[in-house]
Amino acid sequence: MLIHISFCLWEGGDEGVKKGSLKTLVRVQDLTPEKADQLIWLRARVHTSRAKGKQCFLVLRQQQFNVQALVAVGDRASKQMVKFAANITKESIVDVEALVRKVEQKIESCSQQDVELHIERIFVISQAEPRLPLQLEDAVRADGEGEEEGRATVNQDTRLDNRVIDLRTTTSQAIFRLQSGVCQLFRDTLTKKGFVEIQTPKIISAASEGGANVFTVSYFKTSAYLAQSPQLYKQMCICADFDKVFCVGPVFRAEDSNTHRHLTEFVGLDIEMAFNYHYHEVIDSITDTMVQIFKGLRDNFQTEIQTVNKQFPSEPFKFLEPTLRLEFTEAVAMLREAGVEMGDEDDLSTPNEKLLGRLVKEKYDTDFYVLDKYPLAVRPFYTMPDPSNPKYSNSYDMFMRGEEILSGAQRIHDAQLLTERALHHQIDLEKIKAYIDSFRYGAPPHGGGGIGLERVCMLYLGLHNVRQTSMFPRDPKRLTP
Amino acid sequence: MLIHISFCLWEGGDEGVKKGSLKTLVRVQDLTPEKADQLIWLRARVHTSRAKGKQCFLVLRQQQFNVQALVAVGDRASKQMVKFAANITKESIVDVEALVRKVEQKIESCSQQDVELHIERIFVISQAEPRLPLQLEDAVRADGEGEEEGRATVNQDTRLDNRVIDLRTTTSQAIFRLQSGVCQLFRDTLTKKGFVEIQTPKIISAASEGGANVFTVSYFKTSAYLAQSPQLYKQMCICADFDKVFCVGPVFRAEDSNTHRHLTEFVGLDIEMAFNYHYHEVIDSITDTMVQIFKGLRDNFQTEIQTVNKQFPSEPFKFLEPTLRLEFTEAVAMLREAGVEMGDEDDLSTPNEKLLGRLVKEKYDTDFYVLDKYPLAVRPFYTMPDPSNPKYSNSYDMFMRGEEILSGAQRIHDAQLLTERALHHQIDLEKIKAYIDSFRYGAPPHGGGGIGLERVCMLYLGLHNVRQTSMFPRDPKRLTP
Repeated sequence: MLIHISFCLWEGGDEGVKKGSLKTLVRVQDLTPEKADQLIWLRARVHTSRAKGKQCFLVLRQQQFNVQALVAVGDRASKQMVKFAANITKESIVDVEALVRKVEQKIESCSQQDVELHIERIFVISQAEPRLPLQLEDAVRADGEGEEEGRATVNQDTRLDNRVIDLRTTTSQAIFRLQSGVCQLFRDTLTKKGFVEIQTPKIISAASEGGANVFTVSYFKTSAYLAQSPQLYKQMCICADFDKVFCVGPVFRAEDSNTHRHLTEFVGLDIEMAFNYHYHEVIDSITDTMVQIFKGLRDNFQTEIQTVNKQFPSEPFKFLEPTLRLEFTEAVAMLREAGVEMGDEDDLSTPNEKLLGRLVKEKYDTDFYVLDKYPLAVRPFYTMPDPSNPKYSNSYDMFMRGEEILSGAQRIHDAQLLTERALHHQIDLEKIKAYIDSFRYGAPPHGGGGIGLERVCMLYLGLHNVRQTSMFPRDPKRLTP
Repeated sequence: MLIHISFCLWEGGDEGVKKGSLKTLVRVQDLTPEKADQLIWLRARVHTSRAKGKQCFLVLRQQQFNVQALVAVGDRASKQMVKFAANITKESIVDVEALVRKVEQKIESCSQQDVELHIERIFVISQAEPRLPLQLEDAVRADGEGEEEGRATVNQDTRLDNRVIDLRTTTSQAIFRLQSGVCQLFRDTLTKKGFVEIQTPKIISAASEGGANVFTVSYFKTSAYLAQSPQLYKQMCICADFDKVFCVGPVFRAEDSNTHRHLTEFVGLDIEMAFNYHYHEVIDSITDTMVQIFKGLRDNFQTEIQTVNKQFPSEPFKFLEPTLRLEFTEAVAMLREAGVEMGDEDDLSTPNEKLLGRLVKEKYDTDFYVLDKYPLAVRPFYTMPDPSNPKYSNSYDMFMRGEEILSGAQRIHDAQLLTERALHHQIDLEKIKAYIDSFRYGAPPHGGGGIGLERVCMLYLGLHNVRQTSMFPRDPKRLTP
């Protein structure tokens, strides 16, 4: 039988279900020698197709798994059927009925190396247009590999313009399955520690961290802003006795930065908690959460890590237990020793952060560490000053492979001191009145931090552009797809 | 000893930690008769305070737990100390050292009924201003109860204007802990079913569901919109072979609706999945997920449910297994039988939805059901028409206690049909080009739905305003706090 049934699903679906006549579909990853000589049904994409005389070889794909399939003129298939199969466009979705056969020689090019399918019936479920905007095999080719062999690779804009196809590659599938894992590990670890998940508003009446870099929204007859972080709201939850909270959600930065690590919209993994005696209790909670994420990825996502490494080789991610914590002044000393000139209260430039990452890796053999006690002058107004040295603050950044992934601090929990610091930063008090008022009715000492999800994924995997770890990235020049 | 040490935490914290001289703080809920005659340290809020001669009775609170405490002139406490304690403002945070004592008569007004604390030392960690904008005891009073006894209740705007204090009530603490549970149950159930979590952009270049009700954002030198749902993106993930996806995130509706159930920003729990033969596979996945949430809440959040019920009494939430599924035409027949006049292809009005909910409850004894096969005319352009009757569609809503909590459908997965339907709805094709193009390179049949988190929590708990289940609600008139 040879029917083109792109729309069978909704045309005849109901009756098929009622009659119970529908076949069970197997998954590609379950096609192993145990299924040899069984007649099975499968739905998959046509990954490649190659006709050769009276035969047509197909590779059928489901996500990161694929299997070789064969239509050959004989008892079960006519010449027309072979021709039909050979003409099915790449990336079309097909249903096939096929006999599973063990093969003598491993099929190195497929994930299912020990079997192939002998197709008896084939139906087109959804046909792809014949010209694809990019080829999947080009999109997974390692940088450099293409050039040497004169083969094509795909540039980033072509990938992102055609993201739906680019996301089908084994590399993309692995990246975003791992990203899903990071979120789950983050939440599960914090839930076990007694944190409560909160949902904070993204449309806000005043810029949360001063007026710069904020997107404006028309809000009925007035204007509003998009939250640059859940900062003020997660602190208000602490004042509201939730004790330890986390949230996962979009944050928006109207920065005209066209770099490998900036997005205008990214996913923030945010933490805030009351502590008992010292803000290092907060650092310990966050670093332990990160370590649980690193361990979870290492132990449960090894296939995904190796898949990404095939296209983008990198060293395994190293971390220490307990996490290394350096003070800002130590970092400045290390950098000066390496020839960098900088003032005591200067912030770290991006190149200096990277250099410091290399120095720390050499000295301590870790890709993850905390830098504590930043100069007060370079931190937001709500940062708690260091009680023993007012030039510094109880604040910290965390780094992966020499790039910042988290910024955090003990926060000021006294309305009067907060007012003073806001005035010092020339912030309009009227605009943050609700925030400051939150601290007037008893507020526990607390601290927290915000983590960039895309950066964590990029740096853990040793990738070099944050757009690779954002499904549909937004930057000053990209709003689509 | 009698010291006011609001700022001890960051002034002397470091040294205390280094010296290891800090006390372990116990939790209020752990104050049981087993701790009798132990000297403990505790950090808590002063919930109430009442001086009586040489004694001062305090109620100390941590979230939903509280305990009675006593400062009495004697060996351990001076007259001055009793006076000091009596003057501590309500809602201040204090550290106390106290002896745990069993009581002979249960203290009915506290969660810890079998013990009280005999305070030996008390320190103010953070002092509340003496005038609170609302009283917690008024804020948890049941509607009506106040009026009868001439006591105050707190109106909704006062609550929301002072949300940080309103969120401290036992009722609010219970609501948002349960909400956190809904998110966790949603994700855990879907993860077990093989769904992948995705993150979709909120800033988009074109209104996702037609031009109406969308917020505009200034985006550098151009304009953009806030996503009214992750609809187009979750479908694109299906086209990108993620097979089954979910996401949890904010959705934005610029509707000028000032009702008990509309917010301009709410949290969407979204699902999308490829199916094999029939879109009822999707309905089954979603209803089973809802049932797992209902069971998880019933089994793990009974304390929270009962806490909320104390202030807002309601019938326990009822559901069937498998979930009841009615067709739209059946619903119209039931409504007509009850005297409602409506056309076959009219959408249900809100009052008719509620009436239908009551009729269904009477007939089937369930607060949760699916209404399937809506008229095509009342659904979005991407909805798959019913193959056997073009006036209807493969779409459905789900209801809790007679109010809609989910809208979903099989989606059109063919670019040509999608183009026709978009034109029919007078949608500018240029603006949704990336979306339509996603279906040109092979797309599996698929469907899904979007659930409103705040509505699920409101209706499960039998509450009557969605602002009660949004921490910082946004509506046409409210942008703060």
